[in-house]
Amino acid sequence: MKYTEMSKQQLKEELQLLTKKYQEFKDMQLKLDMSRGKPSASQLAISDAILTSVTADNTKTADGTEARNYGGVDGIPEMKSLFGEIFGVDSKNVIICDNSSLHIMFDIIAQAMSTGLAGETPWVMQGKVKFLCPSPGYDRHFAVTEYFGIENIMVPMTENGPDMDMVEELVKDPSVKGIWCVPKYSNPDGVSYSDETVRRMAALKPAAKDFRVMWDNAYAVHHLYDDRRDEVLCLYQESKKFDNQDMVLMFASTSKITHPGSGVSALAASDRNIALIKKRLSFQTIGPDKVNQLRHARMFKNLADIDEHMKKHAEIIRPKFKIVLDALESELAPLGIGRWKHPNGGYFISYYAPKGCAKRTEALCKEAGLVLTPAGAAYPYGNDPMDSNIRIAPTFPPNDELQIAINLFCVAARLAYAEKLLAE
Amino acid sequence: MKYTEMSKQQLKEELQLLTKKYQEFKDMQLKLDMSRGKPSASQLAISDAILTSVTADNTKTADGTEARNYGGVDGIPEMKSLFGEIFGVDSKNVIICDNSSLHIMFDIIAQAMSTGLAGETPWVMQGKVKFLCPSPGYDRHFAVTEYFGIENIMVPMTENGPDMDMVEELVKDPSVKGIWCVPKYSNPDGVSYSDETVRRMAALKPAAKDFRVMWDNAYAVHHLYDDRRDEVLCLYQESKKFDNQDMVLMFASTSKITHPGSGVSALAASDRNIALIKKRLSFQTIGPDKVNQLRHARMFKNLADIDEHMKKHAEIIRPKFKIVLDALESELAPLGIGRWKHPNGGYFISYYAPKGCAKRTEALCKEAGLVLTPAGAAYPYGNDPMDSNIRIAPTFPPNDELQIAINLFCVAARLAYAEKLLAE
Repeated sequence: MKYTEMSKQQLKEELQLLTKKYQEFKDMQLKLDMSRGKPSASQLAISDAILTSVTADNTKTADGTEARNYGGVDGIPEMKSLFGEIFGVDSKNVIICDNSSLHIMFDIIAQAMSTGLAGETPWVMQGKVKFLCPSPGYDRHFAVTEYFGIENIMVPMTENGPDMDMVEELVKDPSVKGIWCVPKYSNPDGVSYSDETVRRMAALKPAAKDFRVMWDNAYAVHHLYDDRRDEVLCLYQESKKFDNQDMVLMFASTSKITHPGSGVSALAASDRNIALIKKRLSFQTIGPDKVNQLRHARMFKNLADIDEHMKKHAEIIRPKFKIVLDALESELAPLGIGRWKHPNGGYFISYYAPKGCAKRTEALCKEAGLVLTPAGAAYPYGNDPMDSNIRIAPTFPPNDELQIAINLFCVAARLAYAEKLLAE
Repeated sequence: MKYTEMSKQQLKEELQLLTKKYQEFKDMQLKLDMSRGKPSASQLAISDAILTSVTADNTKTADGTEARNYGGVDGIPEMKSLFGEIFGVDSKNVIICDNSSLHIMFDIIAQAMSTGLAGETPWVMQGKVKFLCPSPGYDRHFAVTEYFGIENIMVPMTENGPDMDMVEELVKDPSVKGIWCVPKYSNPDGVSYSDETVRRMAALKPAAKDFRVMWDNAYAVHHLYDDRRDEVLCLYQESKKFDNQDMVLMFASTSKITHPGSGVSALAASDRNIALIKKRLSFQTIGPDKVNQLRHARMFKNLADIDEHMKKHAEIIRPKFKIVLDALESELAPLGIGRWKHPNGGYFISYYAPKGCAKRTEALCKEAGLVLTPAGAAYPYGNDPMDSNIRIAPTFPPNDELQIAINLFCVAARLAYAEKLLAE
């Protein structure tokens, strides 16, 4: 019976039952964590060959460069070519950087702030500037623009990506300087942008010449199922059709392909943007860690190698997604509580509690020893207008812990909603 | 006989002889390079154990952190402790970053430009700001401030470091925001700052609250001789005596200890500065490459291990310094041409041609197939007011090539000076 169909008396009995169940979890003195999109120990192990894939007799790159010494600014040829395949662009439009793609993005915003993009006035000098944040989205994207004092504007996510009607309207404002996007298996919804969304994004005519689409393809190859795979159009190729390629900056990394702490990241952009960023890099650094790039190149010759490798990740994390989804379907669906997605890839399950119940659900979990991503974190300034969304990250805990965690989560979700209905 | 004592006729004969010698070098169609402070192939080899010092069964740091996964912002404990020893500060005042200390410095200037340092107005908003550049100095330092449109002001180097009378005077101008320093075995002079210089630097009272001493201890452990070692006072400890520690930022790296392309770098600073920089890093990156830090920690338990390792480097490069210095002493000294230093460490020999002869000497070398660091590069905007200084980098070429290169250099130095005297 759905909660909304229960009488007050039935709800009170339910609350009593739930309070007892909840206390049982508390008595277990749990220490569980479903907060971080972090690979598990067994996922790390499948990439361990990379630790020793470069040895002393084997330190030259494809073009004969000595990887151990100084030199180079944009990455070794074999990695540029590999990420070219991932992005769907020519390798000349790729720069390979160190272990954090967030770092590349932060530095681009920093460059825009202090010296300006492509000859435009530095944003610091332009007064209030704004950034579009499709929400729910990736909290660390929004945090970058917030750090620089840029105003984050929420744009709702739909089943097909950001609400493009709203985006097209907002970019008429010259103080709107960019948009954060996770186009494939989005964080946290697991939504992949439709062809129409990508085409409309590619065709945008923003008032600001220094407007940038920050296209973070963090889950480009992170499918959960062999037979159900989302594919997303290449924004760069689409934008070229509108001579709009300088508006586009695309990012990816091996963080969730090999080892998150010691991977490589990459940027894809137009000839003009690549030249400007390479110029900055030539002042900023003595060059990226070429040895670590070579380790990756030795492990993956091409996209097909990566695809095979990603199947091993999927085998490990697919059961984890199943544990979470099965629990939600059996424990919450029959009671009419919340809604959630069944993503085909990525790292998260996005749970939407009944309006006004997310913070309470999270707090109940926390009190019983289960850490979740803070409710609201996926919205600018942590402010979910519906107090509804909770990001569930199932990959890190071992399966037995995950089962207990999601059982506790379901009890907390029921409690929060029962309390709310009784208070109305 | 010294050139200045020669008659015009004698000089003409000398020029004739030199032109013939120079032609012989040209006929050899050389391709030589003494331009970069770059370790040689045999230096790379002595650190090769680091490539495989972390293996799959061995991936946890001293505090039990899994190095392969996400997490951490300021470095693994064992590397913080090791660099604490190198800097002479507590490990809580150290942050470990990726392979380029230049990157840390650039990012601090970028931060000063866009968001300001320690609550002060961003430099972009302060109108023209200036930076002090002890010269000759490291061109890539000067390039960072030049990149951001900061005005570089030349301060002469003395035998004891920068001219501190001038520095003390210049910092009374609130638009002067910092000074670049390589305090030990300086690039290119090989000068180490005297105790008095360090103490006066530590006691500076700049008008600008956001003035920073950028103290790049790039050659902290890079001695050439066991029995002749320069030691430099720790600026941070000295600055604390004047409650001036927020003015000081110190840098170092393993670039010329292990492999230049894949080392680790470090920053040492006051509690307040460390907190501010850690805050920025927590927005900027998912964290440094902990696996690579662990590789270094496995190789070096403490400063004594590094010291032993550096002796192996010294054994390789000491003969190279000798080849260059012997040639200068035997070929140029008797003719009264130029002057040079005999550094006790570092990577360079700083050659001072007679006034107005550096560019011509460099051009002659280049024409005969020997690349040098561009004359003037060690001065702001590449402008050596005396057209005198040339940085000689002896470490990279094999000894036989180095011998030919320095022989050619001496002929070019003689030619340039003879031409000049004849033209007077």
